[in-house]
Amino acid sequence: MRDANRYGVRAMITVLAGGVGAARLLTGLVQVHPADDITAIVNVGDDLELHGLHISPDLDTVTYTLAGAIDPERGWGLAGETWQAMATLGRLGGETWFNLGDRDLGTHLYRTARLDAGATLGEVAAEIAHGFGVDVRILPVTDDRLRTRVTVVDPAPDGDGTDTHEVAFQRYFVARAHAVPVTAVRFDGAAATRPAPGVLEAIAGAERVVIAPSNPIVSIDPVLAVPGVRDAVTARRDDTVAVSPIVAGAALKGPADRMLTELGFEASVVGIARFYAELAATLVIDRADAGSAEAVEATGMRCVITDTVMAEPGVAASLARAVVAGRAS
Amino acid sequence: MRDANRYGVRAMITVLAGGVGAARLLTGLVQVHPADDITAIVNVGDDLELHGLHISPDLDTVTYTLAGAIDPERGWGLAGETWQAMATLGRLGGETWFNLGDRDLGTHLYRTARLDAGATLGEVAAEIAHGFGVDVRILPVTDDRLRTRVTVVDPAPDGDGTDTHEVAFQRYFVARAHAVPVTAVRFDGAAATRPAPGVLEAIAGAERVVIAPSNPIVSIDPVLAVPGVRDAVTARRDDTVAVSPIVAGAALKGPADRMLTELGFEASVVGIARFYAELAATLVIDRADAGSAEAVEATGMRCVITDTVMAEPGVAASLARAVVAGRAS
Repeated sequence: MRDANRYGVRAMITVLAGGVGAARLLTGLVQVHPADDITAIVNVGDDLELHGLHISPDLDTVTYTLAGAIDPERGWGLAGETWQAMATLGRLGGETWFNLGDRDLGTHLYRTARLDAGATLGEVAAEIAHGFGVDVRILPVTDDRLRTRVTVVDPAPDGDGTDTHEVAFQRYFVARAHAVPVTAVRFDGAAATRPAPGVLEAIAGAERVVIAPSNPIVSIDPVLAVPGVRDAVTARRDDTVAVSPIVAGAALKGPADRMLTELGFEASVVGIARFYAELAATLVIDRADAGSAEAVEATGMRCVITDTVMAEPGVAASLARAVVAGRAS
Repeated sequence: MRDANRYGVRAMITVLAGGVGAARLLTGLVQVHPADDITAIVNVGDDLELHGLHISPDLDTVTYTLAGAIDPERGWGLAGETWQAMATLGRLGGETWFNLGDRDLGTHLYRTARLDAGATLGEVAAEIAHGFGVDVRILPVTDDRLRTRVTVVDPAPDGDGTDTHEVAFQRYFVARAHAVPVTAVRFDGAAATRPAPGVLEAIAGAERVVIAPSNPIVSIDPVLAVPGVRDAVTARRDDTVAVSPIVAGAALKGPADRMLTELGFEASVVGIARFYAELAATLVIDRADAGSAEAVEATGMRCVITDTVMAEPGVAASLARAVVAGRAS
């Protein structure tokens, strides 16, 4: 496997990653590339503290997916999960809007205890990956506090008009089921963060930098908001490949399409190309968008057309091959 | 039920409580007395913070037992418990010496979230009792931080001699399975604590104050260590009844017998009488210790002899009747 790619023995691949879409691409990459030559730089903007626990949803989704432990139906949390702690919490009238399975809770207990003991988020992420038998190097983009905050438009409490206010990301994504309009997104604390150890080196030293098919606004942008990361990726533009999270004008999962439109972007592969044109030389789009290839290339990006919908078996691996090669396989 | 006692309508009973023994006596009391006229003032010296969560073992044992939700085999934690979170924690190499069931975790999540939101331990205890349908008023002795610390004698790491050092209570009780000698017990922070709202009033206003058959040294003494509580109980000596946790020279559960001996007390009903003589006018002892009644009374306490081993059905209620009456029923 180690020789089954065009880079020879130590071809490093670095992936900027959100949650589900990135995790699926990573499962493809480990099928065509040695896992320990792959680094995932993961969004922490949707982390939260709840019930005293530090929860890192994207880090866990990437780890659980690569471990083959993810719940395949939900796409988050662990397979075979039970919900006893939540049942007690509900009985007591506690906050149950953010579902935490019993197995999953063990991860949050572990992370919280280790952080309390002085470990960094990155050290803990590595320990959790090791515990789940994952060889991909999983790095939070920063060990520091960065929190995505979303300005949402709620129906007014009196039913008359609307009520616009800023909430923590998960209050938008989970508590509101991302079903309300968004007028702004902000990465609280980002300016004061530093890249986690290894992040800039993984970008600078990779043969291929990949922008995963994650939500550009709330998964990739918070990664780029850590000072130094955007510049590091821009410096690798020629070797950077983005995978469009938009297929035929829609997000495969989550609110990326509506969010792009609401924030003044175009919910299409062309909109994605404009979003990433300064960062990546190549955009991978789905065959469903083949008709937009010319418009994508007009943004200054090379366009690679292949299957990108990773719901079906084999697609993640073939997409991963295309991403590594920078051309359709 | 409300009239089925000698006090008439509002006969308040206040119980100084540790964990299992106190909880069992309370289940007897609610059979012979209106639950909402009973106040339990509960030890918090064995509370701990673990994995970011605030855990209050004695408060939970009392609540779960009165709710009929306690695991009857273990005597702690919830019936029908599962251990999935612990399994994940173990897989990750986390600290698993303090077992936390999945159902039970919901209580700790709730308590931690409410404390983080600014609620007091007493407010949270009341909410948890309400959530479990418990009408007994359950008060922590203090809302402030009080931690029992135990000086233990471990085998030296090199196998030669011993190693004496002070550890948090649960590091003695659970992690060492209370199987090592104890040379001292200290209630860290006690001097700076205040009684929780309602504690002193519940002692002053009760027709009967009860010292439950809990460990005198690590369950009752930390309750008395909160400034004002010992004096409040002493002022009610005539109406205070203690139940001996020692039967025929042994503790029914836990290390009270060894601990008494190690710390210079006598592990007998006479030792218990000396321990409580200034606080309580009456000591309830088991029939097995009837031969010691005279020696008990020599300490200045009245002695009541009845069945006190609450493992068998009916004993908790008959013991409760004797405690309320201040005489064998």
